[in-house]
Amino acid sequence: MTDSKPFGTILTIDLDAIVENYTLLRGTFTGSDCASVVKANAYGLGVDKVVPALAAAGCTTFFVAHLNEGINLRRILPDAAIHILNGPTPGSESYFTENQLTPVLNSLFHIAAWKNFLSTQTFSETPPADIHLDSGMLRLGLPPNEVKTLAQKPGRLEGLRVDTLISHLACATELENPLNAQHLESFKAELNDLRITAPTKVSFCGSSAIFLGPDYHFDLARPGAALYGINPLSGRPNPMRQVLRLQSKILQVRDVDTPQTVGYGATHRITQSGKIATAAVGYADGFFRSLSNCGCGYIGDIRVPIVGRVSMDLITLDVTDVPDHLLHPGTLIDLIGPNYDLDAVAEDADTIGYEVLTALGSRYQRIYNGGNG
Amino acid sequence: MTDSKPFGTILTIDLDAIVENYTLLRGTFTGSDCASVVKANAYGLGVDKVVPALAAAGCTTFFVAHLNEGINLRRILPDAAIHILNGPTPGSESYFTENQLTPVLNSLFHIAAWKNFLSTQTFSETPPADIHLDSGMLRLGLPPNEVKTLAQKPGRLEGLRVDTLISHLACATELENPLNAQHLESFKAELNDLRITAPTKVSFCGSSAIFLGPDYHFDLARPGAALYGINPLSGRPNPMRQVLRLQSKILQVRDVDTPQTVGYGATHRITQSGKIATAAVGYADGFFRSLSNCGCGYIGDIRVPIVGRVSMDLITLDVTDVPDHLLHPGTLIDLIGPNYDLDAVAEDADTIGYEVLTALGSRYQRIYNGGNG
Repeated sequence: MTDSKPFGTILTIDLDAIVENYTLLRGTFTGSDCASVVKANAYGLGVDKVVPALAAAGCTTFFVAHLNEGINLRRILPDAAIHILNGPTPGSESYFTENQLTPVLNSLFHIAAWKNFLSTQTFSETPPADIHLDSGMLRLGLPPNEVKTLAQKPGRLEGLRVDTLISHLACATELENPLNAQHLESFKAELNDLRITAPTKVSFCGSSAIFLGPDYHFDLARPGAALYGINPLSGRPNPMRQVLRLQSKILQVRDVDTPQTVGYGATHRITQSGKIATAAVGYADGFFRSLSNCGCGYIGDIRVPIVGRVSMDLITLDVTDVPDHLLHPGTLIDLIGPNYDLDAVAEDADTIGYEVLTALGSRYQRIYNGGNG
Repeated sequence: MTDSKPFGTILTIDLDAIVENYTLLRGTFTGSDCASVVKANAYGLGVDKVVPALAAAGCTTFFVAHLNEGINLRRILPDAAIHILNGPTPGSESYFTENQLTPVLNSLFHIAAWKNFLSTQTFSETPPADIHLDSGMLRLGLPPNEVKTLAQKPGRLEGLRVDTLISHLACATELENPLNAQHLESFKAELNDLRITAPTKVSFCGSSAIFLGPDYHFDLARPGAALYGINPLSGRPNPMRQVLRLQSKILQVRDVDTPQTVGYGATHRITQSGKIATAAVGYADGFFRSLSNCGCGYIGDIRVPIVGRVSMDLITLDVTDVPDHLLHPGTLIDLIGPNYDLDAVAEDADTIGYEVLTALGSRYQRIYNGGNG
């Protein structure tokens, strides 16, 4: 529906900004290929719009987390390379080859299962797989003892076609964190032990690690968050363009006076006379309840604090400082925008911009600007 | 897709339990009609499945928050009464009458706009509208001064057909909170001032208020949360049946030893040797990041604590206490289930069950049991 009238809240997504962010990341990266991570519905922004824009900008390699995300993505991208970070669960292997999806094999168990699967099939060309070495995340990937086993028993890889060796940093957003260099060294030592050579590629960088410099780059980068405007450099100015704007409609404005309380649990007490606006967004839209009594919106450049609890479909804001002629039912309040960006909202919600993005709700009207190849 | 293999996490929804909860609420309510609140995609559980089950159980009246939710719901329910809690935004009135949706008018502004709209149209029968009186939420609804105006100037309602007068309690989950009786008294006084009589109905009860007793009941109840298993009685045993089970697959298990850290930011330090499992769910699935280092799962009846940060698509759990023969890739871990219900998860996530429900992700395989009317 293109008419905004039935919607309480409008999410505007700037596809050109995403493309510009991709171009900046690709320009900073010194390796040969810059992929895009588009898991979780392109971090909440919509794979069906975001992915064609990235593909038109020249991106040919994409990463998602789950197999079913890959199956969906294949419908949008008939030819691109699509990698599945979580790898195969038992019995799911044939979905990978049927959809030309590259699994990331995260353990010796994965490697053995994939090898076993390949041995039962006939292919004109062996389908590719990646191998993930854990260099300090302790989450997915071969731990050091499994890498050692693999180095000692290269036969375990016989019959496989290894496309990319990947790893992932735990603290890359903190550029000065000494764990980064430590994880890089473990990864290099493991690569050395494995003695796997080209055409197998190496991928180590997400968004932040691209800014750690060429030592960290290797062949293939796979940024996600920074594409969508999240600051990859904790505590420094954000080099990325902002991608989204979230605006909610005022439903009602009222004059208030003491003594009164606002919302569920009566958590906010009116201490002087003023004006309260109710807007059409709530935690069921992914506008976190943790923003109760601490987040804010903007009407033009005027900050309007959230007062009372965020409820399921509504928030209440103190609009005392806003002139009456700007306060009508239907007036838009910026909830994420130029005055209050993703990272600022996340800080008030006591989380990170990634979670704010991926929680963006399905009841918003979504308007996409730009992205026409 | 009915095959679970491409999915990392499985959400099973028991439609029969929802119907049983509806039947219990309707049996407890002493008024004439018990509606169902199905806003936010039936609190995250899927209107397309939940609503037909409730309709088959005899529910004929439904409430949603947003106009666009009502437009979608009308496609599922050609004949039911559908009420839109947030009311009309300017210019949206014709969508209500075209889709036979009943707006809740929340202010004198809404009433005037609706009246003005009706005067420009011709109808064989005047379309109905509700009026919401605020009895202490300070969120939506006519504040006391607007109710007074309406009582003094009944002409403002001329030409309208008022279906239901509604209000809403701020603290109903706390049965002993004195604000409940206070809000009830304000509401009764306002009803008295307005002198609106049958056939206009009165609706005051959500899930919790049904349990406050007949004084609170009036004509129409509109429970939401309790239908979906949330405890309507804070601090007392939950009379509702649990509705959902969330199970995530183990992707990888590993032995760990000191000194090591787990996950982003290295927030969890291994203090003794043990086993860590990585499972295929994360905050992009609405599995809140606030469960980092404090939530848990269950393998059978064995509690497995979340260690390290919840990341976008993955969690890590300490499975040291689980026998090895139960720990394989593909093993299901209960994340919401018999040992750890919605309200318990919410408490660990520092929120309420409502937010856990409405955040339930779109990457899960959803399996519906029961509901065959």
